[in-house]
Amino acid sequence: METAVGVLGGGQLGAMLVEAANQYRIKINVLDAENSPAKQVSGHGTHVNGSFKDAKAIKQLVDTGVKVLTVEIEHVDTTILEELVSSGEVDVQPSPSTIRTIQDKYVQKKHLEDRGVASAKSYKLETPTVEELQKAGEALGLPFMLKSRREAYDGRGNYPVNSADDFKSALDALGGNKDLYAEKWANFRMELAVMVVKTKDDVLSFPTTETIHENSICKLTYTPARGVSEMISKKAQELARKAVACFEGKGVFGVEMFLLQDDSLLVNEIAPRPHNSGHYTIEGCYVSQYEAHLSAILDMPLRQKDLRLRQPAIMLNILGGDAEDSHTKIAEAALTDRWLKVHLYGKGTARKGRKMGHITVCAPTMAEAQRRMQPMIDLVDKDKPKQSNGVSVVDESPLVAIVMGSDSDLPRLKDGLEILRKLEIPYLVDIVSAHRTPYTMFEEAPSFADAGIQCIIAAAGGAAHLPGMVAALTPLPVIGVPIKPSIGDGMDSVLSILNMPKGVPVATVSLNNSTNAALLAARMLGATDLAIRERVVQYIQDSEKAVQAKRRRMKEVGGDKYLEEMK
Amino acid sequence: METAVGVLGGGQLGAMLVEAANQYRIKINVLDAENSPAKQVSGHGTHVNGSFKDAKAIKQLVDTGVKVLTVEIEHVDTTILEELVSSGEVDVQPSPSTIRTIQDKYVQKKHLEDRGVASAKSYKLETPTVEELQKAGEALGLPFMLKSRREAYDGRGNYPVNSADDFKSALDALGGNKDLYAEKWANFRMELAVMVVKTKDDVLSFPTTETIHENSICKLTYTPARGVSEMISKKAQELARKAVACFEGKGVFGVEMFLLQDDSLLVNEIAPRPHNSGHYTIEGCYVSQYEAHLSAILDMPLRQKDLRLRQPAIMLNILGGDAEDSHTKIAEAALTDRWLKVHLYGKGTARKGRKMGHITVCAPTMAEAQRRMQPMIDLVDKDKPKQSNGVSVVDESPLVAIVMGSDSDLPRLKDGLEILRKLEIPYLVDIVSAHRTPYTMFEEAPSFADAGIQCIIAAAGGAAHLPGMVAALTPLPVIGVPIKPSIGDGMDSVLSILNMPKGVPVATVSLNNSTNAALLAARMLGATDLAIRERVVQYIQDSEKAVQAKRRRMKEVGGDKYLEEMK
Repeated sequence: METAVGVLGGGQLGAMLVEAANQYRIKINVLDAENSPAKQVSGHGTHVNGSFKDAKAIKQLVDTGVKVLTVEIEHVDTTILEELVSSGEVDVQPSPSTIRTIQDKYVQKKHLEDRGVASAKSYKLETPTVEELQKAGEALGLPFMLKSRREAYDGRGNYPVNSADDFKSALDALGGNKDLYAEKWANFRMELAVMVVKTKDDVLSFPTTETIHENSICKLTYTPARGVSEMISKKAQELARKAVACFEGKGVFGVEMFLLQDDSLLVNEIAPRPHNSGHYTIEGCYVSQYEAHLSAILDMPLRQKDLRLRQPAIMLNILGGDAEDSHTKIAEAALTDRWLKVHLYGKGTARKGRKMGHITVCAPTMAEAQRRMQPMIDLVDKDKPKQSNGVSVVDESPLVAIVMGSDSDLPRLKDGLEILRKLEIPYLVDIVSAHRTPYTMFEEAPSFADAGIQCIIAAAGGAAHLPGMVAALTPLPVIGVPIKPSIGDGMDSVLSILNMPKGVPVATVSLNNSTNAALLAARMLGATDLAIRERVVQYIQDSEKAVQAKRRRMKEVGGDKYLEEMK
Repeated sequence: METAVGVLGGGQLGAMLVEAANQYRIKINVLDAENSPAKQVSGHGTHVNGSFKDAKAIKQLVDTGVKVLTVEIEHVDTTILEELVSSGEVDVQPSPSTIRTIQDKYVQKKHLEDRGVASAKSYKLETPTVEELQKAGEALGLPFMLKSRREAYDGRGNYPVNSADDFKSALDALGGNKDLYAEKWANFRMELAVMVVKTKDDVLSFPTTETIHENSICKLTYTPARGVSEMISKKAQELARKAVACFEGKGVFGVEMFLLQDDSLLVNEIAPRPHNSGHYTIEGCYVSQYEAHLSAILDMPLRQKDLRLRQPAIMLNILGGDAEDSHTKIAEAALTDRWLKVHLYGKGTARKGRKMGHITVCAPTMAEAQRRMQPMIDLVDKDKPKQSNGVSVVDESPLVAIVMGSDSDLPRLKDGLEILRKLEIPYLVDIVSAHRTPYTMFEEAPSFADAGIQCIIAAAGGAAHLPGMVAALTPLPVIGVPIKPSIGDGMDSVLSILNMPKGVPVATVSLNNSTNAALLAARMLGATDLAIRERVVQYIQDSEKAVQAKRRRMKEVGGDKYLEEMK
């Protein structure tokens, strides 16, 4: 456990990498300016002061006994790294060729395209001229995005070109840079990111994260991505793994993707290092992206199932603001709810938009995480023109799915829906008839578990096959609500739902009793989510109070008067 | 956020305190030997090298701009600290008088006793002589524990005196120390510990932890304490808060307690600082004991509800072993399951029994945490004579409670119990009759939720009141299994259980169908515990396979032959 790692760059990513290494007392030597964030959390004398682009300083770092050299930033001199590798002086991970390919965004895109990885179509400008922009427009259509090929991040080096009128201003904005390329406009409905770990044997992925950018800077991440089906979430992880598999070497990679309107996915950008969209892993997963990076480059064992989500997590970046201390004000405000975990980076001066820290909150449900993070988002947005958080308008992922055989069942379910609203349990409703839309039922029922639903309420009357059929198609608990048909006493509905064969259980409640179905769902969720349990207990206490009030009244006025009042 | 904290002592507790401070970039200056664990994770030039008992060094530490001075060890010179406070040079937390009182275990016990806090009766030896031991025996009875009043920890400075025959050897063992006292023998059934936070306004407590000692050194902690009712758990927290409320100043305090055979509690020892029994809070709670300590001494807001458990947690100490690298071997073995979080302390040489690190595992259920930690416990115990883990023989906390109105229901429940065993879901069974043991029902049903039960299965026949009554007494989901009575078709049982009034739900399954009740319970647990969900899915797949095999057979032999085979 005494292998020394060398890191080029000592910013916040380097600092969090050092913190992960500190747990195992893995020694890391950092090359960056004196007192850079990573050095603040590592107290020994073998760090190197200097620039991570300086060949001499890099050599000096290697000479401190470094066995594996890695990066927290991709804008390094890969020629020097290649020399170090070929002379056998040090192992560099990920490999210098990977870093070089990724450094140049156009080459990165080409590399992916050549290997069949879906990414935005790109056009390389031979020269930064209007003529070349004209050709780009012909090749990609308008609008397109004009981008610097190198050293561009957090929106810097990007310029949206809507029409030929923008050609001149685009070149004015970016023309100082000769290395430009144009990228086909991605009309995305949301942005997703997946942290991928390339170990010596495997390509593994963390959960799918929803990222929300503002002014091209990452503002918020939500994990798991909200309002995204498990199928899309898995496809995003597959695409991310496929993209990273195209590169040499070991370590974590941040893969940013676009989810288009037709639910297809495109790789947007890859970072060959820990990434802002993976900060949530520190509290949100059992293994953080920083531990994963160390594990990959040092060949410590790591398996796909180690990378599971512990709890839903939201991360909010703390950016430098208008005032010098805007960011510390946000960090202080976060102290009012100590579930909000504040990470400050110890970077000297706050420039506007500079990443000064971040806040992560985890909770048993995304709904609770959102409630807790919202005051921070409001604070950050206080002085800003009201802006939508990107395309994600889903406020709370549903925990309960309510399906009914017919819309005529809905009035019977009204009381139950009210209970769920009252207990602040997010739900979805849908009409799925076992007999009239069997194919929909077969498609939808198995998808609930993957979509984060924890309990299904199914209502049906008469032959009432829906609850039992749904139960046959899901591993989730299904609550059956027998609905009284227009003919008969409803015993047909009850027995159809109740008398399931051994092996496929349905939790049956009494006829038309959607109230109890909702309360049963709440009790199930409350078994592990203590915030919901508290509301269930409150409901029980309130209903006792209501009966106690009636008792008092009956004592007060006597039975006869009470009966009269009831009329 | 730039208040500087000074810490006397830079061991592992200081190191984890520094790690917590690093997140907020709160600057901490440490006084201890060069390269002590706490300094390894803090890279700045204003630490002080020296002894935390040396007045000059302490003064030097204060002069680095320290606003609040705190301790990670109680064996400090309180006279120096009092001088610093009275001269107004620095704030010391907790207050020096508190540290002084706690330093002397006899004075500590007296202090608690005088304030009505239950703790073991003690007798002060005026001189370390056989005569005084004789008097101690008369005052406390035999056996008793002879203890050094100061500087004793991890079992050092303790000697059990079983009879007058031990007097001589006890004095030989501890007699070099003049300050001895005798403590009444506590015949405890288990040891509990609670971390308490004293803020400027409040006394708050973390959850109740079960501690397991071996050779008087803390070996394991389990949170929540296993096999302890919520009532006892709350009483332990109350006692711990009451004990800490007796002391001046702010900060976290570790309170170790004995749970006696009669379920009463005694304070064993208090530490005025973060404590080994609170390491689990780093991963197990939303706020760690280290964050809580900083919050208390720096007046950052903290409330009781911030100290909630995130997930069940087990902590195993990594101790120095027979070989120099025994502890690193354990840390390396822990890499095979990355949910095991390894903390190494960076202490130079491993003495046998020295605390070199610890491992914490958190999981959605205690059962899963235990499964994951067991290989580490086995490794630690490999070369030891087989020893029971103290009094705790509860292997897995039950998640499902199965209650039946009569033992005659048990044969009907057999299939359900088998399913739970097969799906590795820990459960308890009990006979509780609504009509014959109503008081037991009223006492037991409300206790399940607090004991960590997540789902109740209640079986009854005939009038079958049990499931509904239990549901009226708990916020947990209740599954009702109607049992067919000897008379009639069982519809009486079904309707008694099914037709609950609005407000009190029971999930009813069909007559005698304990299989489906167990599967329903498994699906409920699997909604949040993905390990259980995987086993539910496996069960579903297996039962499909069984029917597919029958299909193949029927195709093969035809209906007539098949029917013949069925006979």
